[in-house]
Amino acid sequence: MSTATADHQTASAGRRNGATTGRRLAPHPDRLLPPDPGVRAIARSIYSSVAGAPIYSPHGHVDAALIADNRPFGNPAELLITPDHYVTRLIHAHGIGLDQLGVKNPDADPREIWRLFCSHWDVFAGTVVRYWFESELSEVFGITDVPSAETADQIYDQLTEQLAKPEFHPRELFDRFNIAVLATTDDPSADLAAHKTLAADPDFHGAVVPTFRADRYMSPDVTGWKGYLDELGQAADIDTGSYAGLIDALKARRAYFKECGATASDSGMPDAYAEPLPDAECERIHQAGIAGTVTAEDAAAYRRNMLYQLAAMAAEDGLVMQLHADVVRNYDDASFQRFGPDTGHDLPGPSTFTRGLRRLLNDFGRSETFRLVLFTTDETAFSREIAPLAGFYPSVYVGAPWWFIDTPGAIARFRAAAIDSAGFSKTSGFIDDTRAYCSIPARHDMSRRVDAGFLAELVATHQLAEDEAHDIAAGLVGRIPVNTFRLDRYAR
Amino acid sequence: MSTATADHQTASAGRRNGATTGRRLAPHPDRLLPPDPGVRAIARSIYSSVAGAPIYSPHGHVDAALIADNRPFGNPAELLITPDHYVTRLIHAHGIGLDQLGVKNPDADPREIWRLFCSHWDVFAGTVVRYWFESELSEVFGITDVPSAETADQIYDQLTEQLAKPEFHPRELFDRFNIAVLATTDDPSADLAAHKTLAADPDFHGAVVPTFRADRYMSPDVTGWKGYLDELGQAADIDTGSYAGLIDALKARRAYFKECGATASDSGMPDAYAEPLPDAECERIHQAGIAGTVTAEDAAAYRRNMLYQLAAMAAEDGLVMQLHADVVRNYDDASFQRFGPDTGHDLPGPSTFTRGLRRLLNDFGRSETFRLVLFTTDETAFSREIAPLAGFYPSVYVGAPWWFIDTPGAIARFRAAAIDSAGFSKTSGFIDDTRAYCSIPARHDMSRRVDAGFLAELVATHQLAEDEAHDIAAGLVGRIPVNTFRLDRYAR
Amino acid sequence: MSTATADHQTASAGRRNGATTGRRLAPHPDRLLPPDPGVRAIARSIYSSVAGAPIYSPHGHVDAALIADNRPFGNPAELLITPDHYVTRLIHAHGIGLDQLGVKNPDADPREIWRLFCSHWDVFAGTVVRYWFESELSEVFGITDVPSAETADQIYDQLTEQLAKPEFHPRELFDRFNIAVLATTDDPSADLAAHKTLAADPDFHGAVVPTFRADRYMSPDVTGWKGYLDELGQAADIDTGSYAGLIDALKARRAYFKECGATASDSGMPDAYAEPLPDAECERIHQAGIAGTVTAEDAAAYRRNMLYQLAAMAAEDGLVMQLHADVVRNYDDASFQRFGPDTGHDLPGPSTFTRGLRRLLNDFGRSETFRLVLFTTDETAFSREIAPLAGFYPSVYVGAPWWFIDTPGAIARFRAAAIDSAGFSKTSGFIDDTRAYCSIPARHDMSRRVDAGFLAELVATHQLAEDEAHDIAAGLVGRIPVNTFRLDRYAR
Repeated sequence: MSTATADHQTASAGRRNGATTGRRLAPHPDRLLPPDPGVRAIARSIYSSVAGAPIYSPHGHVDAALIADNRPFGNPAELLITPDHYVTRLIHAHGIGLDQLGVKNPDADPREIWRLFCSHWDVFAGTVVRYWFESELSEVFGITDVPSAETADQIYDQLTEQLAKPEFHPRELFDRFNIAVLATTDDPSADLAAHKTLAADPDFHGAVVPTFRADRYMSPDVTGWKGYLDELGQAADIDTGSYAGLIDALKARRAYFKECGATASDSGMPDAYAEPLPDAECERIHQAGIAGTVTAEDAAAYRRNMLYQLAAMAAEDGLVMQLHADVVRNYDDASFQRFGPDTGHDLPGPSTFTRGLRRLLNDFGRSETFRLVLFTTDETAFSREIAPLAGFYPSVYVGAPWWFIDTPGAIARFRAAAIDSAGFSKTSGFIDDTRAYCSIPARHDMSRRVDAGFLAELVATHQLAEDEAHDIAAGLVGRIPVNTFRLDRYAR
Repeated sequence: MSTATADHQTASAGRRNGATTGRRLAPHPDRLLPPDPGVRAIARSIYSSVAGAPIYSPHGHVDAALIADNRPFGNPAELLITPDHYVTRLIHAHGIGLDQLGVKNPDADPREIWRLFCSHWDVFAGTVVRYWFESELSEVFGITDVPSAETADQIYDQLTEQLAKPEFHPRELFDRFNIAVLATTDDPSADLAAHKTLAADPDFHGAVVPTFRADRYMSPDVTGWKGYLDELGQAADIDTGSYAGLIDALKARRAYFKECGATASDSGMPDAYAEPLPDAECERIHQAGIAGTVTAEDAAAYRRNMLYQLAAMAAEDGLVMQLHADVVRNYDDASFQRFGPDTGHDLPGPSTFTRGLRRLLNDFGRSETFRLVLFTTDETAFSREIAPLAGFYPSVYVGAPWWFIDTPGAIARFRAAAIDSAGFSKTSGFIDDTRAYCSIPARHDMSRRVDAGFLAELVATHQLAEDEAHDIAAGLVGRIPVNTFRLDRYAR
Repeated sequence: MSTATADHQTASAGRRNGATTGRRLAPHPDRLLPPDPGVRAIARSIYSSVAGAPIYSPHGHVDAALIADNRPFGNPAELLITPDHYVTRLIHAHGIGLDQLGVKNPDADPREIWRLFCSHWDVFAGTVVRYWFESELSEVFGITDVPSAETADQIYDQLTEQLAKPEFHPRELFDRFNIAVLATTDDPSADLAAHKTLAADPDFHGAVVPTFRADRYMSPDVTGWKGYLDELGQAADIDTGSYAGLIDALKARRAYFKECGATASDSGMPDAYAEPLPDAECERIHQAGIAGTVTAEDAAAYRRNMLYQLAAMAAEDGLVMQLHADVVRNYDDASFQRFGPDTGHDLPGPSTFTRGLRRLLNDFGRSETFRLVLFTTDETAFSREIAPLAGFYPSVYVGAPWWFIDTPGAIARFRAAAIDSAGFSKTSGFIDDTRAYCSIPARHDMSRRVDAGFLAELVATHQLAEDEAHDIAAGLVGRIPVNTFRLDRYAR
């Protein structure tokens, strides 16, 4: 079943297409800076001082093998459209089936996919995806046409020509993008071969570090849990048929991840509750999970215990714990069954942290080694809970806005909501969270511009001296992410 | 019992009254446009290109008979104060009883009501009601005095004089207001006679279309439910003594509404949960409802099933489903008993959509014919849930801010919260939601000004080209509401 | 155990320290005013008209004995750092133990505490604490150096010198600060001796009035409840061993507080629910509380009944009821046990008022004597619930932003969220809520600046005439707090 529908396509056809014709794709050097001339001058000065700084990307979803193998990218659709659910979801929202965009559909013609994208350029007006694409097409690929039905083929050909050149291979772009650290996201059973290859390569000067993400082992009621346990058991060479074995295996793999350069873990949970359970209780639920008889209530209790145990491990081994919660994953069952995960329908609900993390923070929040970065897709949590928690607990940091709120407007609102109580140095620094490798510079650049604007407002309203604002801007792209994510050994 | 109190009146008397004396009521041509001169110039250009566009009002509460009968309006209080709970509620909040404002009190002297309003002009400072009144008094009625205790009588006399003129009759105003479509809100048992009269009238060139609102049939524990069922049964000529009969009657009436020009339904629910129940379960609860023995829990389950069934009907017949939720209706029991519904104490709580609508969206969200516009009075839902849902599901649209957040500031925040992930074309266009007929132009004009300012900021920060901003502004007042509410046949 | 950790101190040491060296502490006369030159000119005019107005401080935590005794302040750390959890919490968040800052540690060297504060000056960049300190150090104490590790000793010596002068004694500062009314927060069993001393002193021209705060009697499951009841019983000379006795004792003490000048009560509750219980039920739970056998569920029901009863008392005696809710007090158990309450880890969660206060507002909301000021640390409640409630009920007022959101940015957002539906005159006026006596002028000045900026935006966007904006600004610092908190007898 395709989700494309006559009705929605009609709606789409109702858009006027003339507006973009004839214009050039030329991102303005002052884009995103505040419009007031006085404030803009300050912002421009701040931005220009950090525009060229190395990129620390401590949280993302690029595959390490992409860099290790350094194979040329495929076609423009495969690179820029099909795998990026930020892009496909909004075209889907205008009645185009994900299959037509190549998702789980190797037969789709990449040029047709590209045409679909370009002919929907107008629906991206005002969105952050449009913003990233303008920077990326122009600054990475040198495209000068505004995408449209008319220009689609020409842009496609230009991109194809560029991608064939050696300077567009992943490692060459890594250098050109000036990436100091790129953190990937990895399953505990992963062998991390690509990370090891890169670390051992004397010709590769950046750092590509794994991140330990144990989500699929946390809930004994997820489909396939038994198989996951087996995979992990093999990777760790520990029997995960018991709860105690699972805990041991996770500890062993964390140690392995650290050996391979990891400095952090990541957890995406349905809610931000962490509560220890007695071991015997965990063991009982573990066995029920393996037997396929676990109740939803027991599974939730088990998962909340696992989150607590991950914190306990972090307080031991010092891997920085990242937590984001309150998103319903794979919301649309039919789309999930047909197209798999990460296809644009992870959908958020209200977030709260204070009550659910109380026990965890009482036990580990003042620990020397523990560190917790809290992410949210619910903006209200910044001023209400996350900044207040980070303003007391030495271990807690305010994670940058993420997923739907990784936008210029929302980043500015985040700064306004978090800084006045927690200060800059208890925020995490920008994370791009992306699987779209070529969008990394555009995303970090966006953040630097918005932060420059925020700092300039503080200067213009005499809340901050200009030299201090410059110093903070430098910190936000350097010592702050390095400190938060314990990246000191990789710092430039 | 009057809610007027000596104490609150003292507080009110404590206000200084001098400030407004001697000023002229002259709404500034640049009102609501951003203050920065550069941004304002862009905004002015955008605004002026849409200021005169026809009004599509796809959601409101004007009575169709007002237009069909075209009788002259009564006195200023009856037209502008008594029925408008936006106005009466804030005067009530300063200690004046609703009875003194004419609510359920035919003996109240309209001139006295008007004086009360004018002498409270200062308490409206900074509110959107003040903003609308300034535009409306000046631009519809040509009033030049600022309302105050001193000017009340003179303004009253001027308004009375104006209202007697033929050009102030409802139909003449309809033309002068340049209304293309006015949607009303109607009970399923309504005969829609006025709508039919207007549709059949060759001299009437606008469209006044009904909207199907079945709220009072949804909850079998509301007082009078049995009587409502009987009314509906008679209108549909179907026995509504069974759940199956109710479903059939609603379907029949939806068909009748479509014949009479309807393109949409509307539902206002205590929460946004929709879950189907087995038919037998519904039948059991239906009978308990008729017998007056239904439990609150069963009634809620029944209501959530009904919402699901309305969605199923919408997926069949294509009426656009509007949903607003999480408002406690008729919060103050004593005021409700004395003054009836819609008297200013429908009061909102937190809103959430993602989890409650999952089943509904899984079943209908990708349907060709289904369309769902989500409204909220909780601003936090825009960036957290509504825009994310609309950015994936072809059927879902982001409804404009409503009731307490239908204000310049909140509309600007809504744009900032929704556009960066969902884009302009997945928003609904402005709805005025008003029963105050003469305020319709002022409300739509407000929206056009705020949108012009928002677009101008995007242009000034180089996120949007100016020609594209003009095109979007035109869309927001034309093809976007026409598309969202399926008004194509009425479009100008 | 100290919470200071090597790891966090390393992070802290990672900060650059050069940025602040050599600059002067000279708060700009236009600070916090909007940067656009046109808007700033309007804001400056509005601000200057209220900058020198007397201070009404209707809610705070200064000890009345401080003023009554008029002893010189101790050292700078004891005055400015150790007791102010706004300050200590953020230093704690950077790995410094509260003990090192003097909390429950009389052996700590005040000069060392001051050095710790100054060497952490950079972590306060962008925070409201930094903002207040700049104003306070400069304008109250005449300090011209920016705090830093290098300047710490010199500033300490200057402050010490100043504090020794008679003009820096509490009463002299009271006059210099131009405080008209200072409300304190007091336990119902307090004898209010200092308040009586001041009221009887013909040489003291201000008003220092108590506020009735009965929190510790509300929940029969708090540790020490029985002892609290005994204290109250002695103060009231009424046996509080029964629920009826507790109610009587509270009523008696409210009457005593009124005699001593009180105009208001205050309640900080885990949630904003108020529901009456039958007396027999209350009596049963009361006895269980005394016996130490009360369940959490019963204790919550008792507490919600007590809140309802306090409202009933307020509707009788006219003490203005202040309510703030949804903060987890003393979140970190170990810190609470070691350092006591009010040490920076009262941490907020989501707030909601509409449903929980329905019964209370139905019963008292339209009463002549009842008045309820609703405070929140969850900004979302302003536009969603508090302003809508205050825009209908004569008794309800929108409390100013509090605790974590008492900041320039959050105050501006509060104005934008509340005024457009509730108007200025249903807001409470600024409250400083502080125990930091010398920060009072800086805090009120901050509020006046932000309000001037908000009003100037309304003027610049032609929503308000400039003369009316001036009048409102005067109201916000005068007649509005006087009216809201029934301070007429103390008004200047």
